[in-house]
Amino acid sequence: MDARVYHSISYGLYVLGVKGENGAMGGCVVNTLFQITATPPVFAVSVNKENQTCSLIQKEGLFTASALAQDCDPGIIGLFGFHSGRDVDKNQNGDLALSPNGLPYLKNGSCAYLEFAVCGQQDLGTHLLFFARLINGEVLSSSTPLTYAYYQTVLKGKSPKLAPTYRPDATTPAPAKQPAPEAPKAEAAQDSGKKQYVCTICGYVYDGEIPFEELPEDWTCPICGVPKSMFEVK
Amino acid sequence: MDARVYHSISYGLYVLGVKGENGAMGGCVVNTLFQITATPPVFAVSVNKENQTCSLIQKEGLFTASALAQDCDPGIIGLFGFHSGRDVDKNQNGDLALSPNGLPYLKNGSCAYLEFAVCGQQDLGTHLLFFARLINGEVLSSSTPLTYAYYQTVLKGKSPKLAPTYRPDATTPAPAKQPAPEAPKAEAAQDSGKKQYVCTICGYVYDGEIPFEELPEDWTCPICGVPKSMFEVK
Repeated sequence: MDARVYHSISYGLYVLGVKGENGAMGGCVVNTLFQITATPPVFAVSVNKENQTCSLIQKEGLFTASALAQDCDPGIIGLFGFHSGRDVDKNQNGDLALSPNGLPYLKNGSCAYLEFAVCGQQDLGTHLLFFARLINGEVLSSSTPLTYAYYQTVLKGKSPKLAPTYRPDATTPAPAKQPAPEAPKAEAAQDSGKKQYVCTICGYVYDGEIPFEELPEDWTCPICGVPKSMFEVK
Repeated sequence: MDARVYHSISYGLYVLGVKGENGAMGGCVVNTLFQITATPPVFAVSVNKENQTCSLIQKEGLFTASALAQDCDPGIIGLFGFHSGRDVDKNQNGDLALSPNGLPYLKNGSCAYLEFAVCGQQDLGTHLLFFARLINGEVLSSSTPLTYAYYQTVLKGKSPKLAPTYRPDATTPAPAKQPAPEAPKAEAAQDSGKKQYVCTICGYVYDGEIPFEELPEDWTCPICGVPKSMFEVK
């Protein structure tokens, strides 16, 4: 089967927010949040069991989803998508606020947040699919919602290993034509025979003006925050 | 709660294809198809129990999903989203082809088709959520996948009444900024004080060059195919 069929499915990108241990704020990035019934307004979201967020949703029965904006800082995806709350403080940049029920949501870089109460779950092997009723929400900006296609095509990102859409062979994202308001610079670089440096953690393809070799040693991946040494030539 | 929070969730649009009675080809439009695990590749789709497609999926255990392209004929959405296979022949335009397993898929107007085998289901009141393993698929064009945001903002369509995202109050779609490559003509018409004619079945807002009153009597809604008489002034 042609693996490009996967690219015909459209998704948004969301930061789930949960109450962590000892008042900490937890969360992770997902692309599988969907409304499944209108009356009542019930949504489904698929979360990998290995994500700490999964057990915290089970424990609390409440979570938020902040819909990422196209103009968000890609570092948000790095922090919430490629690092565990076991190792880092997810509110290290002060981007989170608390809902009336005390759940964290992303106040900067999202279009809206939605608050959910879990009403069921289905075990799907690697993932739990939560069914949750929308109980609260707020519009936070008029930005365009970030789609997974935009993330892959324009931001050159890829899926974390625990995502439902992760495929180890997905080295070249989005072969099908996708909505791309700017011509991706990395493709131009490829055409000119310039070396392409790719982040081995998140798949980000460096496409800056300064040659990669000349970047300062303390430069870090704008998506997941790892150092230069974690990049390799594609 | 501000109902605009719903617009921060991104979806694609898909035609589900099923084997109908006596060799007929059935199907409907959904926006709630998403991958929920990577290994194995299992997807979920929410289908209203009142749709004939729902009972046919249960009966056969197999279905296809054709990912609609942004440049598809909007009449496809009308035929599959606003008419029942009990009343019309879903292959009346010859747009369907058969997969190796004999299931219909949309050969014109879609980016790819995916074929699924049902592996579970969850009853959610008005809808059944099917879990299904991807067993086959084919890329059909390099067009951009149609998103629900584009359908609402540019094509001025709305949800069928049986859709999970249907809201009876949704008279003005997409208040949040959405990716819209062309300035929607209907908005310009609204600014100039021109009357807006809206389809009472599918919500399509007429925005043609010819004044609505001067359209020929046999003119039909380009989204759902109903006659002029089914339009009203907004």
